[in-house]
Amino acid sequence: MSSVQFVDRRARLARSLDELTVSAFIVTHLPNVRYLSGFSGSAAVLVVEKDEATTLITDSRYKNQSQEETGQLEIHLVTGSYEETLARFTRVRAFKSLAYEEAHLRVSQLKLLESELPTARLIGTQGLVEELRIVKDATELAVLERAAVGLMPALDSIRSSIRVDTSERTLAAELDYRLRRDGYEKTSFDTIVASGSRSALPHGRPTDRRFRTGDIVVADFGGVMDGYASDITRTFSIGDPTGEMARIYEVVAAAQQAGIQRIRPGVEAQEVDAAAREVIEAAGFGEFFGHGTGHGIGLEVHEAPWISPGRAERLKPGMVFTVEPGVYIPGKGGVRLEDDVLVTEDGVRLLSRDGNGLQDFSWVCYG
Amino acid sequence: MSSVQFVDRRARLARSLDELTVSAFIVTHLPNVRYLSGFSGSAAVLVVEKDEATTLITDSRYKNQSQEETGQLEIHLVTGSYEETLARFTRVRAFKSLAYEEAHLRVSQLKLLESELPTARLIGTQGLVEELRIVKDATELAVLERAAVGLMPALDSIRSSIRVDTSERTLAAELDYRLRRDGYEKTSFDTIVASGSRSALPHGRPTDRRFRTGDIVVADFGGVMDGYASDITRTFSIGDPTGEMARIYEVVAAAQQAGIQRIRPGVEAQEVDAAAREVIEAAGFGEFFGHGTGHGIGLEVHEAPWISPGRAERLKPGMVFTVEPGVYIPGKGGVRLEDDVLVTEDGVRLLSRDGNGLQDFSWVCYG
Repeated sequence: MSSVQFVDRRARLARSLDELTVSAFIVTHLPNVRYLSGFSGSAAVLVVEKDEATTLITDSRYKNQSQEETGQLEIHLVTGSYEETLARFTRVRAFKSLAYEEAHLRVSQLKLLESELPTARLIGTQGLVEELRIVKDATELAVLERAAVGLMPALDSIRSSIRVDTSERTLAAELDYRLRRDGYEKTSFDTIVASGSRSALPHGRPTDRRFRTGDIVVADFGGVMDGYASDITRTFSIGDPTGEMARIYEVVAAAQQAGIQRIRPGVEAQEVDAAAREVIEAAGFGEFFGHGTGHGIGLEVHEAPWISPGRAERLKPGMVFTVEPGVYIPGKGGVRLEDDVLVTEDGVRLLSRDGNGLQDFSWVCYG
Repeated sequence: MSSVQFVDRRARLARSLDELTVSAFIVTHLPNVRYLSGFSGSAAVLVVEKDEATTLITDSRYKNQSQEETGQLEIHLVTGSYEETLARFTRVRAFKSLAYEEAHLRVSQLKLLESELPTARLIGTQGLVEELRIVKDATELAVLERAAVGLMPALDSIRSSIRVDTSERTLAAELDYRLRRDGYEKTSFDTIVASGSRSALPHGRPTDRRFRTGDIVVADFGGVMDGYASDITRTFSIGDPTGEMARIYEVVAAAQQAGIQRIRPGVEAQEVDAAAREVIEAAGFGEFFGHGTGHGIGLEVHEAPWISPGRAERLKPGMVFTVEPGVYIPGKGGVRLEDDVLVTEDGVRLLSRDGNGLQDFSWVCYG
């Protein structure tokens, strides 16, 4: 990724700092650190000053990596703890006030900073970087599209394993292996495979349960590429589904289509949720759809925007999120369908597409 | 796991609460929630009262799972946010004071609780549950041993892939796949495979780099079983190593042995670190061993005790930790060897052992 991207992002952040009238902003949430600097390691604090001077504080494990990834940034290596190092750095720079991320800083960290910096003003802020991250730039969109499209070969490859006697755990392991072989750094989250009556658990963890004829199998998975997540769900039937499950599959597919079709700039997030939800409610399954219709994806697999009831935020071009309605009948089974979409200038584009398009996807597996 | 374990753990915690003179303790760190209740989901708050009455607050996704996993605990489902639910619950129970985990609660969460509960005293605590978790009970030891021994077949199975032209990414994917097939829920952390000069990076992420003759390959991996982590590292040479690398391997192996042999109840953690470190320093490589010698493993893959300089905590029977000295020569390569050990009544037991024992492990791969 070009370092121009990061300079631009930090310039946008610096404008928020002007309004706050603080000397500097400490970024402790790692996805935010990565967004602003390119650093992908597992421990760092980024200090952004009002004049856009930026310092990455990290430890010796990441000395080489931080230099390679952040380009021209000043790297400051930790001695003692991160908090001690940050306090010393603050004193040397004589910052009078320091903004921090209230949703991420731990109480113990704040107390340490307060005792180390008795004269500095410490100011909690909410979502300054997260707000910048909601609308993706061109570089991010290219990566997100690769991360979504890249799931399709894995999806194809596991179809032959969706048959009687494969266990949930085996299917999940094969999916994960394939994603790694296809170039993903890791999975976006612990892969979900839930079968039979367990498919009614929205967050079922793979067990040793083996598929049987008549089972519903829900597979919810995704991979991380260059730091960006993808996240899709497909539901399968092992042999012919019951009439009820076939009906539910149709309803969920129609709900997903209705949600996707509602997407364009200016529409409120909750309207997309409502479009999908109304289809499910009209079919009489409203009480069995207990979660929101979607969530943003980016450097985190769950981030803004939230496509849920009560969310009035308006969609903008460059937002990327999932659309994933589901119906879960306790003791019987569930169906969820999830894809990743991009809000375009005049509508929506499906990112997690394959050559055949969604409509041709056959969910019934024989053999 | 028998629910008696959890009752006993909560009784031990309740004794700490007596000393604090608080009405209740809210546990927000998920490994601590799991330790005290058995709940393994991804969102919950546990409320432990002085009389050991305990309530698990979780959301509707985990309704069935929380009941199954926690047995007799009272389950309270979230309406609105977790913080709002917790505040309402606190008001209903008329708690006068509430202890929280300072190292885990976010500043924004504390502010929300403060504004929702203006008359309650909120008291930050440090490491109350972590302290209980340092010494493992019999149930935990059985799981930790299975999690460590269970890595050995995966280690055997990847040897045939440690040869010219295999990529770091492929080896990591094969390891992860094998671990899943062998019954692990997931990997303990993102598997590290670093080859050639990259082996000098203690935290190298697998890349598409392919192994070449003369490479050093460091593989650091582990799996989670029933919630408990294992973590080992092996170093390989593709073909004959250089004289320098062969020497470094010998030194690191001797350092690891020296560290392990120092372990018995009553010894300070830093003495184990020193025993390993002295071997490396005596060989002239002291400046190339930049990290601590080990860390505890349990419900987290990095937890107390910390086997590092300056750590005077005394070892006790039932502690489980890694011993993992390394030497990293920038631009050339590195060697790290890591095993999992248990402090016994009169010494130490290696958990990550195979039939042949450590000494027979051949690190040079041909073919």
